[in-house]
Amino acid sequence: MRLLNAISALLLVSAMCAAQPTPVDPIDRFRVMPVPASLKPGSGQMRLGPDFRLAFVGYTDARLSASVGRMVKRLTHRTGIELPLQYSTDPAAAMLVIECKSAGKPIPQFGDDESYTLEVTAKQAKLKANLPVGVLYGLETFLQLIDSDAQGYYLPAVTIDDKPRFPWRGLHIDAGRHFQPVEVIKRNLDAMAMVKLNVFHWHLTEDQGFRIESKKFPKLHEMGSDGLYYTQDQVRDVVQYAADRGIRVVPEFDMPAHTTAWFVGMPELASAQRTYSIERKFGVFDPVMDPTREETYKILREFLKEMTTLFPDAYLHIGGDENTGKDWKANARIQEFMDKRGIKTNAGLQTYFNQRISEILTKLDRKMVGWDEILTPDLPASAVVQSWRGEKALAETARLGHNAILSSPYYLDQLQGAAKLYLADPLAAAGELKPEEAARILGGETCMWGEAISPETIEHRIWPRAAAVAERFWSPRNVRDVDDMYRRLAIIDIQLEEVGLQHNSNSGRMLRRLVESDDTELLKKFANLVNLYSLGARDTLKQDDQQTPLTRFGDSIPAEGTSRREVAVKVGRLLTDPDSREAADELRRMFKGWQKLSAELRPVLDSSPQLRENQVRADELSELAAAGTDAVNYMSAGQAPPPPWLGTRIAITDRAARGKTLVYFPWLHSVRVLIAAANDAPKYKDATDSEWAMHLALLCEQYEIHERWHW
Amino acid sequence: MRLLNAISALLLVSAMCAAQPTPVDPIDRFRVMPVPASLKPGSGQMRLGPDFRLAFVGYTDARLSASVGRMVKRLTHRTGIELPLQYSTDPAAAMLVIECKSAGKPIPQFGDDESYTLEVTAKQAKLKANLPVGVLYGLETFLQLIDSDAQGYYLPAVTIDDKPRFPWRGLHIDAGRHFQPVEVIKRNLDAMAMVKLNVFHWHLTEDQGFRIESKKFPKLHEMGSDGLYYTQDQVRDVVQYAADRGIRVVPEFDMPAHTTAWFVGMPELASAQRTYSIERKFGVFDPVMDPTREETYKILREFLKEMTTLFPDAYLHIGGDENTGKDWKANARIQEFMDKRGIKTNAGLQTYFNQRISEILTKLDRKMVGWDEILTPDLPASAVVQSWRGEKALAETARLGHNAILSSPYYLDQLQGAAKLYLADPLAAAGELKPEEAARILGGETCMWGEAISPETIEHRIWPRAAAVAERFWSPRNVRDVDDMYRRLAIIDIQLEEVGLQHNSNSGRMLRRLVESDDTELLKKFANLVNLYSLGARDTLKQDDQQTPLTRFGDSIPAEGTSRREVAVKVGRLLTDPDSREAADELRRMFKGWQKLSAELRPVLDSSPQLRENQVRADELSELAAAGTDAVNYMSAGQAPPPPWLGTRIAITDRAARGKTLVYFPWLHSVRVLIAAANDAPKYKDATDSEWAMHLALLCEQYEIHERWHW
Repeated sequence: MRLLNAISALLLVSAMCAAQPTPVDPIDRFRVMPVPASLKPGSGQMRLGPDFRLAFVGYTDARLSASVGRMVKRLTHRTGIELPLQYSTDPAAAMLVIECKSAGKPIPQFGDDESYTLEVTAKQAKLKANLPVGVLYGLETFLQLIDSDAQGYYLPAVTIDDKPRFPWRGLHIDAGRHFQPVEVIKRNLDAMAMVKLNVFHWHLTEDQGFRIESKKFPKLHEMGSDGLYYTQDQVRDVVQYAADRGIRVVPEFDMPAHTTAWFVGMPELASAQRTYSIERKFGVFDPVMDPTREETYKILREFLKEMTTLFPDAYLHIGGDENTGKDWKANARIQEFMDKRGIKTNAGLQTYFNQRISEILTKLDRKMVGWDEILTPDLPASAVVQSWRGEKALAETARLGHNAILSSPYYLDQLQGAAKLYLADPLAAAGELKPEEAARILGGETCMWGEAISPETIEHRIWPRAAAVAERFWSPRNVRDVDDMYRRLAIIDIQLEEVGLQHNSNSGRMLRRLVESDDTELLKKFANLVNLYSLGARDTLKQDDQQTPLTRFGDSIPAEGTSRREVAVKVGRLLTDPDSREAADELRRMFKGWQKLSAELRPVLDSSPQLRENQVRADELSELAAAGTDAVNYMSAGQAPPPPWLGTRIAITDRAARGKTLVYFPWLHSVRVLIAAANDAPKYKDATDSEWAMHLALLCEQYEIHERWHW
Repeated sequence: MRLLNAISALLLVSAMCAAQPTPVDPIDRFRVMPVPASLKPGSGQMRLGPDFRLAFVGYTDARLSASVGRMVKRLTHRTGIELPLQYSTDPAAAMLVIECKSAGKPIPQFGDDESYTLEVTAKQAKLKANLPVGVLYGLETFLQLIDSDAQGYYLPAVTIDDKPRFPWRGLHIDAGRHFQPVEVIKRNLDAMAMVKLNVFHWHLTEDQGFRIESKKFPKLHEMGSDGLYYTQDQVRDVVQYAADRGIRVVPEFDMPAHTTAWFVGMPELASAQRTYSIERKFGVFDPVMDPTREETYKILREFLKEMTTLFPDAYLHIGGDENTGKDWKANARIQEFMDKRGIKTNAGLQTYFNQRISEILTKLDRKMVGWDEILTPDLPASAVVQSWRGEKALAETARLGHNAILSSPYYLDQLQGAAKLYLADPLAAAGELKPEEAARILGGETCMWGEAISPETIEHRIWPRAAAVAERFWSPRNVRDVDDMYRRLAIIDIQLEEVGLQHNSNSGRMLRRLVESDDTELLKKFANLVNLYSLGARDTLKQDDQQTPLTRFGDSIPAEGTSRREVAVKVGRLLTDPDSREAADELRRMFKGWQKLSAELRPVLDSSPQLRENQVRADELSELAAAGTDAVNYMSAGQAPPPPWLGTRIAITDRAARGKTLVYFPWLHSVRVLIAAANDAPKYKDATDSEWAMHLALLCEQYEIHERWHW
């Protein structure tokens, strides 16, 4: 067996990492995320020191000054350089000159000019934008450019000409199933601004909670929220806070289904007359509004009118998803209504409902947004369809003439790795669309559904992965280098803490609480070797509900560690070069480390009733390390394992793949392939490199573990 | 050389740890802090599970329900046990029965009955108190009792009859020199309640900032605060928040000196007519109020009257400290005033000022509190003197008939270890007082002065050390077991995070920011080996001011690691038993670890311009480890080192003792004694144990490094 050629080796490793190989780019030297539309490296560096001065040119206002103030504070915190309190009045003497052309509108709007240019030379940085939002984005890029060397902090000389690929770049937070306090929302808005996301989609009503104060219909929030709702003052505050950061707020009031919490206080809206209480379980439920009564529309008209006084954005989301239709079928009066009007199906009745709501919204000067289900032949042209059915449904929507945004590949609760989120493209299925059709794909939203997140866990569930999605929505389509994305994601992960984001702090504190100690080193090492099952899979382990404490080890750890990629790379190195002593030793060291960790973990996991459930995974880690070491040894020795070896070792991996705790090994398929390859290698002793590569590819296919939480 | 007897060995080790040996107590098994007045272990355990129910008996109100709500949330977070939303109405079926006798006053008062009893049996816990504050304290004790074993979480059976030793148990926060946002204040209030501190002393005005809104004299906060002040709404909110947690708020308006920031807006109050601007430097400054003009008292009367509408507590602090008197001497009119009235000294003039202020406060139904300087023969009997001059000044105050509280040994900015803070006793110098005089010593306050703390560092400067002081103020005088204090402090350190305290999170985030990575393992190991110099010593390194970024490595780490104690114990073990192979090996391993750490740290410290200054300490760590290893080897071999060895090795420690960075090695004296002892050991080969012990004690004395930041 000889060395495989470089390309097939690279391909194999890449396949195992699910990363596409791309040529090294000058952007690699930079730290910016999302990558700008155009970035041209210059020569030299602008050094940062206490002589740093800042000047405004052109339009300026309180919002701009405030954002510069925040920028200066972050610069100081990061570099420890004492900066003056006052701005310079002389642009020539300033190191950062900010030039804004005009005020724009007081609140950000869909389609605003978000572009900016940033030119950094050894002497000065110039930031220019047409509107304040461009300045905000340029300041973020400025902060991201800061680097350091032996002489101190600097910005590399560079010319950036930047604007977004898509105008709709959203984060959806479901505050219905679990309430999220205002400070959590605000921290997410700050983080969004850092990575140039511009739509906060605020999911405010659900079966499990009605989360916004209605002065017109106070029973809605008083009886439907357990007291956990946003006051109107808080909503106004959040909308302003978002606007100050260039972010539009699109509220969602999900209807006609997902409305149990509405009916606790206002059962007159419901199709079935029963006693309603706030839903504690998660899933799809039957309660649904009665679309046949005029009173329903009267109430909704009033309610939506009230809401438009709080939410100035031109778009308003009415949900429209997951209606079982059972309560419609069971209601004779509703059936009669359908018969009379020749409405044959529940879908038809919902179309009727949507049309009525659409008329209301049009009168309120609002455009309707809804999930896939709202897409029916009579949908008004101004409506935006949010796709949870994927890229194909999205393309179909655009073909039918509607604006559309993509969500499903970006569901953060499915806990995919950042790479998977990153590589999903809103235009992936747009190949056959005409340009004007493709233009209707406005962008996308990454969604944090609320079943299994608490205020303590939401930030490390969303971040830093949402930053990878933000780059997909902002940067040119061909920016797809997964390794470079992960390099920059690790940087922004820490920088996100500058705006107060608690993702790492919350995770750290939860781990400390579990071990009752500041020493969480072992738990953190273990955390890097496991991932939390998809939040959807959680309820396959236990019947969770809204009151379930989300305090377990799996809840405490980040969504993604580095182990999946690292193990794949190390295994890939040996498989593509089975004679490599280095690759073999590297794997042996890794497996030895796992065994040591497994032994050290035992007393730690045993010390806490909440940690103990993970003992089984720690045991499996040790068994998998032993099996992996065997595989490396057989492979290196060019020796065939005895016949039962393969079966018993794969059985270990099968056991380890089963759900018993909240966490699984995201690198398990790599170890399976290693074991299988060690078994087969002697048979390929005299094969060509490409025959071996083909076989490896087959093994990768065969031994992938196809669970829904894997990708 | 034979084994030393157990007692002298213990004494030596203890001397090196500065811990007093005390017999093991049943309290050792418990986790409560502060230790209750009386705690009698019972038999059996009350197991915690989803069947946990809670019932109220007797008086109840919204404040009690809210505190129980907070307790239930913490219980859930810590144990992961899902608890019901509703309380039981049947005490017999409840596992925790809360019985409060009466409402008490709406706001806590000095001298309130703070006692409670808590009886835990295998079946039920009963918490009884006369007033709601006793219930609050009992709930904290309940949470602290929770322990776990292989079967899950439980409370040990116990009978607690608890009340405080002192009625005045304070935390002083200086929000003048650096402003501290309301959320920081609130988090500290929550933490205070956890350890039964009951006075928040809020230092609101300083040369560097006037931090409270005055509607009567808006120029004060508008011109004297850089916009960083508390609105009156915020103040009312904080006072209520504190009251809900059993905490009185005593505001301080420091006068007649420390008043530069007042004069920016109202120079008419000052003794010297010059242009005032907010002071940026730290220290003692000349600006002082003019005590000779009636207008001064008119303004202060109005101002203090306004403040009493915000602060309901019977006590109000007028500062009164550090008046240089220079501006009085330089003012001819003031000198004339003094001549006319026969006032000979500045102290005499300040007495006159105090009397005038005292009259104003009496009319406003407030008792005056002030620092030592207010203690003059004519001080009203109702005044309370806060001593920054120490235990003797405190005893003298009490002898003279005044109520007094102790502060100076509890200055958190001096960064002593928790042990030093813990062992200082308000009655230390009260031995010669009559009982009625000693009773005038009301308690104490631990003080966080504001020169070198930011909102990001204040929490890890105050906590967890303030918990040790809280125990001093609450628990019986004979509770002085330092080892047990540290054991429980480590537990409460993590539990403090349950109420939202950010001390560990802030420190962790700052370290991550310095290395731009989530991997701070090496930095944390290094942090455990160093302490930050006293915040007072910081300005000997650099002329810091109010704008200095407090972002360096020393700013980022906790006030105290475990290394001082651990090194002392390990060195003590070898010195008291020089033939012990185990003790020698233990030290060798420790020194080897330091050398490894030093080598690994090099690239980490080099990677950040802000970390690089610590390279010198990392180098010294390696040198000290080598010297220490030598010492162990000589000692174990019973061999005398060559003559120059001692001098060159002590020289290394001398170098390492000098301030070059913000941090020092708190265990340095232990290594010095080890080196000196290794040098002298051969001479004591045939000496008795007690001769050797005497010599070691001498070396401890000789090689202690007497710097002000050491204790």
